[in-house]
Amino acid sequence: MKPVKVFLDESEIPKQWYNVLADMPTPMSPPLHPGTGQPVGPDDLAPVFPMNLIEQEVSTERWIDIPEEVLEKYLLWRPTPLYRARNFEKLLDAPVQIYYKNEGVSPPGSHKPNTAIAQAYYNKAFGIKRLSTETGAGQWGSALSMACQMFGLECRVFMVRVSYDQKPFRGIMMNVWGANCIPSPSDKTEAGRKILAEHPDSPGSLGIAISEAIEDAVGDEDARYSLGSVLNHVLLHQTVNGLETQKQLEKIGVYPDVVIGCTGGGSNFAGLCLPFVRDKIHGKEISVVAAEPTSCPTMTRGPFAYDFGDTAQTTPLLAMYTLGHDFVPAPIHAGGLRYHGMAPIISHLVKEQIMEARAYNQIQTFEAGVQWARTEGFISAPETNHAIAAVVQEAERAKEEGKEKVILFNWSGHGLVDLAAYDAYLTGKLQQYEMPEEEIARALQAIDGLPKP
Amino acid sequence: MKPVKVFLDESEIPKQWYNVLADMPTPMSPPLHPGTGQPVGPDDLAPVFPMNLIEQEVSTERWIDIPEEVLEKYLLWRPTPLYRARNFEKLLDAPVQIYYKNEGVSPPGSHKPNTAIAQAYYNKAFGIKRLSTETGAGQWGSALSMACQMFGLECRVFMVRVSYDQKPFRGIMMNVWGANCIPSPSDKTEAGRKILAEHPDSPGSLGIAISEAIEDAVGDEDARYSLGSVLNHVLLHQTVNGLETQKQLEKIGVYPDVVIGCTGGGSNFAGLCLPFVRDKIHGKEISVVAAEPTSCPTMTRGPFAYDFGDTAQTTPLLAMYTLGHDFVPAPIHAGGLRYHGMAPIISHLVKEQIMEARAYNQIQTFEAGVQWARTEGFISAPETNHAIAAVVQEAERAKEEGKEKVILFNWSGHGLVDLAAYDAYLTGKLQQYEMPEEEIARALQAIDGLPKP
Repeated sequence: MKPVKVFLDESEIPKQWYNVLADMPTPMSPPLHPGTGQPVGPDDLAPVFPMNLIEQEVSTERWIDIPEEVLEKYLLWRPTPLYRARNFEKLLDAPVQIYYKNEGVSPPGSHKPNTAIAQAYYNKAFGIKRLSTETGAGQWGSALSMACQMFGLECRVFMVRVSYDQKPFRGIMMNVWGANCIPSPSDKTEAGRKILAEHPDSPGSLGIAISEAIEDAVGDEDARYSLGSVLNHVLLHQTVNGLETQKQLEKIGVYPDVVIGCTGGGSNFAGLCLPFVRDKIHGKEISVVAAEPTSCPTMTRGPFAYDFGDTAQTTPLLAMYTLGHDFVPAPIHAGGLRYHGMAPIISHLVKEQIMEARAYNQIQTFEAGVQWARTEGFISAPETNHAIAAVVQEAERAKEEGKEKVILFNWSGHGLVDLAAYDAYLTGKLQQYEMPEEEIARALQAIDGLPKP
Repeated sequence: MKPVKVFLDESEIPKQWYNVLADMPTPMSPPLHPGTGQPVGPDDLAPVFPMNLIEQEVSTERWIDIPEEVLEKYLLWRPTPLYRARNFEKLLDAPVQIYYKNEGVSPPGSHKPNTAIAQAYYNKAFGIKRLSTETGAGQWGSALSMACQMFGLECRVFMVRVSYDQKPFRGIMMNVWGANCIPSPSDKTEAGRKILAEHPDSPGSLGIAISEAIEDAVGDEDARYSLGSVLNHVLLHQTVNGLETQKQLEKIGVYPDVVIGCTGGGSNFAGLCLPFVRDKIHGKEISVVAAEPTSCPTMTRGPFAYDFGDTAQTTPLLAMYTLGHDFVPAPIHAGGLRYHGMAPIISHLVKEQIMEARAYNQIQTFEAGVQWARTEGFISAPETNHAIAAVVQEAERAKEEGKEKVILFNWSGHGLVDLAAYDAYLTGKLQQYEMPEEEIARALQAIDGLPKP
């Protein structure tokens, strides 16, 4: 029998996170204060985040120690296994080896707790008593709920109303972990009440939910806001995953030719690939591929520009690929990929051509996901199916080129709470979404007049 | 940092199943043909099961080789990790070490594929083209669907109508794995049509679904029936779990004082504990505890008697603890524990006082399950919460007695598809079910006149 999985001993869990800012070949454009147009300083962010996380956000130290208390919680499910997808390889019949890192083994079923645990710890250490956040499909909200429970923090999650109604299981999960999950727009905030007054039946949006969560946190000195992707410190925390993977591959004497992940805000992709990006910057030949949806083609069709992180324009301006902060993506089932922008770190690396981005349509991703489930067994999150579609494409290319390839990808989460999406696919009810050029042009009007990077 | 998990290398996966029949201290009462009252022979079972599985059902060989093809599929998720529940220990504040085997990491999320894979393999090897089965809550149906897909067999699952409607996710899971999931009673069988004619709105029952699945299989020479618990060969396949656990505990130099599992038909419990029962039979001091629901108190309040495995009286008579084949348990959320009988092997070992059974009420089990989720992170299946309730009880006893104890239990599955049950608990809507004496007496009338063991 040929080996399928590579485990690490708990003693081998990485003790530091990797900060790619230390190795950036060119300087990144700093976040700007929307009022002054000047780079934001730590004090500007102090009402929103605790100072220890703000320090991490701007740090250029290459290695940052993972606190003992965080490691202890990571060990509840980490190190996660690295698998070889032998059955899927057989189905594809291409000259490829396919390895995947199984982040679905965490209690909420995704990579999200890698940063949720760290953020809860740092907030607690800073004396904060309550965290407020938003969630779309619910992966992030459930991960932060668990983390807050484990560090004795209160947690309030503003969940986009339409998802709250469509996916009740995620909200229940948050309740099991003791959090308060509120459909957004809500009457708890000025921002929410304003929307409700105009649109009592508003289905909500991630933009509105972010505005509510920030307002809720900023108004209470014992509370802070928490974000599950996009920011530097969030991507930093996720690198524990890629660092584990490097150790696992080393054990079996394998190095990937291609590293793949799906991208919404960029955090699961960054977590796996940034340690490999470091190798690439130091001369290693390797492709790093971000898989995004054609319905929200941030990097494949948006410009690199300064834009707000939220619809209500409350965040600093970030230099990133964006479709405009007003952009409302089609209601694809991969809710975690429905974000108009992209992590500045990922955006910068794509702009510098160290990474590349490709877009996949919804039906294609479920096709890949069902093939996956029927060979490897595991049912993937709709987001993860985008990475699998990219794997299929890479395998086809290797076959055409007659070239052997080692493919590595992040199996960022399972789809056991997203089965309705599979039902829609299997019964032919799934919609294809491609963005018309005019619609993208219209959305990009939102960034007219903002500073340019 | 103290270790939390023990992994096995893939090369350490057990290569044989353990057959407790080789070590039984007293002879078991054989299954009887209901017509003749005589022990059933292999030929009686041939229309229902393939001969290679019938041979396993009656084998008294101590060790039975696991075929290479089965091992290969096991490796998709096995060996499963053994965890130490340090955070839960801390909460309980008792002189106990708590270890649990995480069977929730399999693709369908439970221990069920351990036998599903084996049964699909043996049927395929015997030339069978289609399997038919029933499922209650859906854990078994989804596991067999995956296994059939992997061995190229068709799969038809009769799912109790009320569960089919209440838990659509399990049915979708079966579809993802290519199976046909039919709400029962259905118009596909004589048995189903008969019920529908009398009760067009029948919510169905496990008894009816079994009758439909057997009828559906027996009428087609390319098809056979498959059962997910109770029978000897099913328990045999599950022992891969306990054998792994013994290796894992050996690695850290630990031996349990108590082994615990929840029991519906008995298979997950058997899988973990039978290898330890072997030690006990050979002189080791160890308690082996089965945790059942107070709403279906088969072993704690039923007699040891001959009874049918199904409501329609189509199976052989099995010598087991039973509440009578007509017994319809209250609609608790732990659907997998709603079975009137108990595996003959488990029943015999309880009768011989090698194992003991205890009953836990629904609210108590969810209380334990929520405490578990808030400390260990993982959300357990409602069935598994019965085992956790027993762990809590053991810890309390150890505290009272001031005695150190090592507790081992089977975390038989996650509850991510059962979150509605947690919602009911958290919102105070969960019902307590205790069986009135009269109701049990009434149910037991069904076995009046049957042979006695």
